[in-house]
Amino acid sequence: MEKIRIGIVGYGNIGRGVEQAVARNEDMELKAVFTRRDPKSVSVRTEGVLVRRYDDILSMKGEIDVMVLCGGSATDLPVIGPEIAADFNTIDSFDTHAKIPEYFAKVDQAAKAGGNISIISVGWDPGMFSLNRLYAESILAQGSTYTFWGKGVSQGHSDAIRRISGVKNAIQYTVPIEDAVNRVRSGSEPELTTRDKHLRECYVVAEEGADKAAIEQAIKTMPNYFDEYDTTVTFVTEEELKADHSKMPHGGFVIRSGETGCEGNQHVIEYSLKLDSNPEFTASVLICYARAAYRLSKAGESGASSVFDIAPALLSRKTPEELRAQML
Amino acid sequence: MEKIRIGIVGYGNIGRGVEQAVARNEDMELKAVFTRRDPKSVSVRTEGVLVRRYDDILSMKGEIDVMVLCGGSATDLPVIGPEIAADFNTIDSFDTHAKIPEYFAKVDQAAKAGGNISIISVGWDPGMFSLNRLYAESILAQGSTYTFWGKGVSQGHSDAIRRISGVKNAIQYTVPIEDAVNRVRSGSEPELTTRDKHLRECYVVAEEGADKAAIEQAIKTMPNYFDEYDTTVTFVTEEELKADHSKMPHGGFVIRSGETGCEGNQHVIEYSLKLDSNPEFTASVLICYARAAYRLSKAGESGASSVFDIAPALLSRKTPEELRAQML
Repeated sequence: MEKIRIGIVGYGNIGRGVEQAVARNEDMELKAVFTRRDPKSVSVRTEGVLVRRYDDILSMKGEIDVMVLCGGSATDLPVIGPEIAADFNTIDSFDTHAKIPEYFAKVDQAAKAGGNISIISVGWDPGMFSLNRLYAESILAQGSTYTFWGKGVSQGHSDAIRRISGVKNAIQYTVPIEDAVNRVRSGSEPELTTRDKHLRECYVVAEEGADKAAIEQAIKTMPNYFDEYDTTVTFVTEEELKADHSKMPHGGFVIRSGETGCEGNQHVIEYSLKLDSNPEFTASVLICYARAAYRLSKAGESGASSVFDIAPALLSRKTPEELRAQML
Repeated sequence: MEKIRIGIVGYGNIGRGVEQAVARNEDMELKAVFTRRDPKSVSVRTEGVLVRRYDDILSMKGEIDVMVLCGGSATDLPVIGPEIAADFNTIDSFDTHAKIPEYFAKVDQAAKAGGNISIISVGWDPGMFSLNRLYAESILAQGSTYTFWGKGVSQGHSDAIRRISGVKNAIQYTVPIEDAVNRVRSGSEPELTTRDKHLRECYVVAEEGADKAAIEQAIKTMPNYFDEYDTTVTFVTEEELKADHSKMPHGGFVIRSGETGCEGNQHVIEYSLKLDSNPEFTASVLICYARAAYRLSKAGESGASSVFDIAPALLSRKTPEELRAQML
């Protein structure tokens, strides 16, 4: 069997997750990791994998079927997304919601010019949660959709706390409020405020002699990040933070309830994820869409798309015949 | 806006559900209902809808964009599925799992010959549950998938009870066993027997003077239907059956758990449905795929497919741009 040759751009948590996901899918092989760091400083787990400078990426044109872009959405992907799409099929997890249309347009133009496939915003949100919002809203034309996240670490909120004066380190968990989830599950279509849906739990390591009351106040009143939520702040030692808060669990729920018919029959559709490792799960989704990109590219297609445009069968290692016989 | 012109073939529970689902989607209109009964005996809810004999279906060729086939899988669809696919785009909910490959091949041949689109086995199982099995298995390459059904009425099991001598009427509920569901949700990937997963609850109206003990024994030992399950039998009056057991709720769960990475991180993906009306929900899914069939047909495609082959965006009334901006 000819294996799908994968390249990884950026070797952080997601990049390492992609490496491990490739190892669990025998129709794929990891060929190379591209990094902005000194390649000698990057040691990958898989034997025989090249580590190259990002600037040398074109030297492997034609030797990699799909590049999985594992950079950040704020500054990295807006540059490298269109850049790499000109020469390789790409998958990314671009998640700056407000900038998706603009990003899509740029990647689409580059991918079409290069004759490549690019699937953007792949993961679980955006990604599987988006898909479930779409399916559920299409089926129940009248109704309400709710997304809850957590319990899980929000990197953005953790970073925001770390920027407060006197804070040495911090982790923030987004926690869905069970009562709100249960009201939504009942099908009653409640109106919920931001505060009704999620709590924010913060574990903070203060610098020696720092004013803890001031830190707590600064967190709880921080606009956009915390002021609209009920927030708890717990001070811990650096050792406690490492011991108890260094894993990356996450998850959440997409729930739509709505009615059908003329007698107001109620229905509830729920999709939920409970994840030990957010980056490894995200990477596992990325790898499925890499398979789809490979197949679409082989079929002669090009341009950008999102999870909405990809037929589910393209994600599976099984043939259409096997899928119909075994899984329908 | 040009509306999608829908035809319904077969005016039972699902057919009536489709009529009501069309009324809730303003990009569609119901043009005609085709029936094997005397059209004069069939009164439809929607004004202006034609009721025609099934044998006159070809008289409306070119006037209907998608025919939704609401017949049974045992004897009806195997005949009319390929027959109608020769002249119209079709959607059906064919659910005889073992015969799907054979049915697919026949419908595909007819649809291709006629230049039409046919999407088979649409609904929630087969349908949304199948999709979720596929997505979850593709993402978590190593793991176990479980499907639980209910609580809901099984028409096949209810019919089987009604065939027992001395039984006047009966309803059978398939009930998922909570302890098994919880074990699966924990991610422990338990091995479960048929008996571990579901109970069967039967509500039976006996004929006057019938031997109730014999009926109960006949149910509980019936091969394939009941012998591998824990089954409860409750005798009720015809009035009680009508009052308490004439609704058609259903639902269930698809749960996959599996691990990623080299440290054995566990993940649980769950999709669940809680439905007041099984036929109305099934009809709502059928209607989304009718929209997809219409679009594929307009794009010049033909042949049979299943939910696995349909890009999610085709189900939504929203444009690709709207979907990316609002829902990704």
